[in-house]
Amino acid sequence: MIAPVLLREPAKPALLAALHQRLGDRLSTSAAVCAQHGKDESYHQPHAPDAVAFVQNTDEVVEIVRLCAQYDTPVVPFGTGTSLEGHVAALKGGVCIDLSQMNRILRVGTEDLDVTVEAGVTRKQLNEYLRDTGLFFPVDPGADASLGGMAATRASGTNAVRYGTMRENVLALTVVLPDGRVIQTSRRARKSAAGYDLTRLFVGSEGTLGVITEVTLKLYGIPEAISAAVCAFPTIAAAVDTVILTIQSGVPVARIELLDEAQMEAINKYSKLDHKVAPTLFFEFHGTTAGVAEQVEIVNGIAAEQGADDFRWATTQEERSKLWQARHDAYYAALASRPGSKGWATDVCVPISRLAECIAETKTDIAQSSIPSALAGHVGDGNFHLIFMIDPNRPEEIAEASRLNDRMVTRALAMDGTCTGEHGVGYGKMDFLCAEHGEAVEVMASIKRAIDPQNLMNPGKIMRI
Amino acid sequence: MIAPVLLREPAKPALLAALHQRLGDRLSTSAAVCAQHGKDESYHQPHAPDAVAFVQNTDEVVEIVRLCAQYDTPVVPFGTGTSLEGHVAALKGGVCIDLSQMNRILRVGTEDLDVTVEAGVTRKQLNEYLRDTGLFFPVDPGADASLGGMAATRASGTNAVRYGTMRENVLALTVVLPDGRVIQTSRRARKSAAGYDLTRLFVGSEGTLGVITEVTLKLYGIPEAISAAVCAFPTIAAAVDTVILTIQSGVPVARIELLDEAQMEAINKYSKLDHKVAPTLFFEFHGTTAGVAEQVEIVNGIAAEQGADDFRWATTQEERSKLWQARHDAYYAALASRPGSKGWATDVCVPISRLAECIAETKTDIAQSSIPSALAGHVGDGNFHLIFMIDPNRPEEIAEASRLNDRMVTRALAMDGTCTGEHGVGYGKMDFLCAEHGEAVEVMASIKRAIDPQNLMNPGKIMRI
Repeated sequence: MIAPVLLREPAKPALLAALHQRLGDRLSTSAAVCAQHGKDESYHQPHAPDAVAFVQNTDEVVEIVRLCAQYDTPVVPFGTGTSLEGHVAALKGGVCIDLSQMNRILRVGTEDLDVTVEAGVTRKQLNEYLRDTGLFFPVDPGADASLGGMAATRASGTNAVRYGTMRENVLALTVVLPDGRVIQTSRRARKSAAGYDLTRLFVGSEGTLGVITEVTLKLYGIPEAISAAVCAFPTIAAAVDTVILTIQSGVPVARIELLDEAQMEAINKYSKLDHKVAPTLFFEFHGTTAGVAEQVEIVNGIAAEQGADDFRWATTQEERSKLWQARHDAYYAALASRPGSKGWATDVCVPISRLAECIAETKTDIAQSSIPSALAGHVGDGNFHLIFMIDPNRPEEIAEASRLNDRMVTRALAMDGTCTGEHGVGYGKMDFLCAEHGEAVEVMASIKRAIDPQNLMNPGKIMRI
Repeated sequence: MIAPVLLREPAKPALLAALHQRLGDRLSTSAAVCAQHGKDESYHQPHAPDAVAFVQNTDEVVEIVRLCAQYDTPVVPFGTGTSLEGHVAALKGGVCIDLSQMNRILRVGTEDLDVTVEAGVTRKQLNEYLRDTGLFFPVDPGADASLGGMAATRASGTNAVRYGTMRENVLALTVVLPDGRVIQTSRRARKSAAGYDLTRLFVGSEGTLGVITEVTLKLYGIPEAISAAVCAFPTIAAAVDTVILTIQSGVPVARIELLDEAQMEAINKYSKLDHKVAPTLFFEFHGTTAGVAEQVEIVNGIAAEQGADDFRWATTQEERSKLWQARHDAYYAALASRPGSKGWATDVCVPISRLAECIAETKTDIAQSSIPSALAGHVGDGNFHLIFMIDPNRPEEIAEASRLNDRMVTRALAMDGTCTGEHGVGYGKMDFLCAEHGEAVEVMASIKRAIDPQNLMNPGKIMRI
């Protein structure tokens, strides 16, 4: 990965003094704190901000953003630092706004099946809080990310196939604009035809248009019945075909996840499990008792025709948690399979009719490559990941991962897919965004310039201004 | 309704000559054609464009938009003219682009459950075309609107409660920008985190940011089982409570529509039916045979507790068509109930916890009013309509309808609802948009100025520039 060219000047002492006066100990310029806030979970080169502001409410964000505008200093919002394309790297320095202390759940609407939270609330915290209400929030990217960060990166994950991504599940946002104005992007009504869809504009804007400080989300009733299962297949093609047929048959499967044999071997070791080392699907079914039984019967039939092994069922909450924890730990398991390696996690998403072909060609590529990698994915959406386990001190491995990544993205684009199904653009996929969107990137840039004319909000991400 | 102040100058003869040279007979300046293209189905004062261009492909739209930009002349896109807030009124004159001849279905993806159509294809035409594929497109605003127009106005309708609105069902758009550039807003992948969500920005932009020429939509498998029913209730509160409990219980009802007693009387007469004249719910259930039976059982139980009459079932396709035709004709039925009247159709949408209260207060209002009106709505979403049947020659009736509309919208906004759930803003609800969004309208305006600096795309709609 070649570091972008940076034109960086340190934050003005007068700005830091003003921020310190306002926030006291909640402004940190310690090298360790700054370093921690300039890196995410990816292979991308970290870039520390000049200071980190631990905010506690929207008003403080307003004041910080106004001061930064006055001193022409970049602002980088930070949730939990679990992004994967360098989203939080302070490429031009500036002030990182850490929202983790904005972690109050402001309102639960049990009748309306919605909730309003501060941006620093994490998805696990929310679901823990909801436990006694019979409701849950489904979007689950694996990491215990903040809901503000998940909105900012248009996160999705394992059960987007049934419940949608953050795009479908955010009802409204409170956003601090680059000039310090505060807007509410929408009311709580389930639908609206009132003007431009600002909610969807800010969902996925990766901090480049403003700082999200509050999020209103849809909730769902916990299904009467939930069943999960693991099932091995003779070939990856058989597993993928099972997915395609399941989706096309209209079964409202809640999760349908593919892990290749390398990934299964890694999670067996990491999570001390004894799954067969073969291309495997992880399923979850939600519904009424009768409805789940019906879904299971249909999918069982499809899988059997593809030569699947028997389903291994997890019916208790505990068994299911163990099953999905193993799936969620796939990334860490892959890294552990090559001690000392760093993970380069990448993702694409293609129309499901092209999924088998896209995965097959990608598998051929990685079989011929010199670096270890594992494949996993939210295949019901046509979305899958590669994790390259690279030695960060060997430039030839980085070059090889970059070459494989290029080939995979180019392949997905040629199949009318996208360069990222859920990780976002950050500074890692800016060139691919241009390849994907062409002239439309200039429309995005004109919106960016209109809303953030000083280019201070998370500069150097999504597109070059 | 007070007409907006217009600063209008006729289109330049040189522009019309250039357009005529390009389009021949497909450019019309006939008074009748222009008049027909300046009005929609609403009470709003029509405004004829100076010319109507009947386009046949995206390239022609590009040329027209470029010529209009060169001559600083407004452009108003036109689908079928079934909008309800003055969307197609050429407030500043200019050239209307009629897309009805762009009516080709370009691609059906039976494996991906998607379709790409030209913007002039209507929803009925599409579903007719799909008949033998086992797939259908669900969004159904009643009118046989064009899919480009439905995207532009973020249309929804009776089964949005199950399948979502155009916001959820548009995968990608081809758009001609105000300067003639053509963009594709997205690839066909089901999800993407690649940059700003331009698809959702253009969905609902009402022609103010560009001309939509092609639309890629999600399709769904026709359910194995479909059942529809009509059920009368002793009071409107009982009907609304049935809706609220149904939604809260998580039953995936496909349609759940409320009609008040005035509306039921009107449709009985108009469609020669014999439904009980009482607050009534129209239901439709989609799923597997067992799934539909289960849904019906739950809803039956809820309705019975609210004192409902027996359900009248429509199980054959023919019976269902008749049932839903009556629902769709509600607007025309209401108008026919007062011969010579014009309809002022308005809509709001509130969180479902406030629906009963919002409808009850609105019913009290109309009971005390001097003009006849009827209430109907897509209540599963919290969305409902009033139709005022007004004598357009009596200013006091227009004033009374305006007063009632103001009160209803103000009430909805106070309940965290929206000023329009599905009709859009046009030029009828611009002031309400400001009341709803406050500072956020300025963000919309900055986007408008960035993409359409000359303010030529459907000027005078959504917001004042």
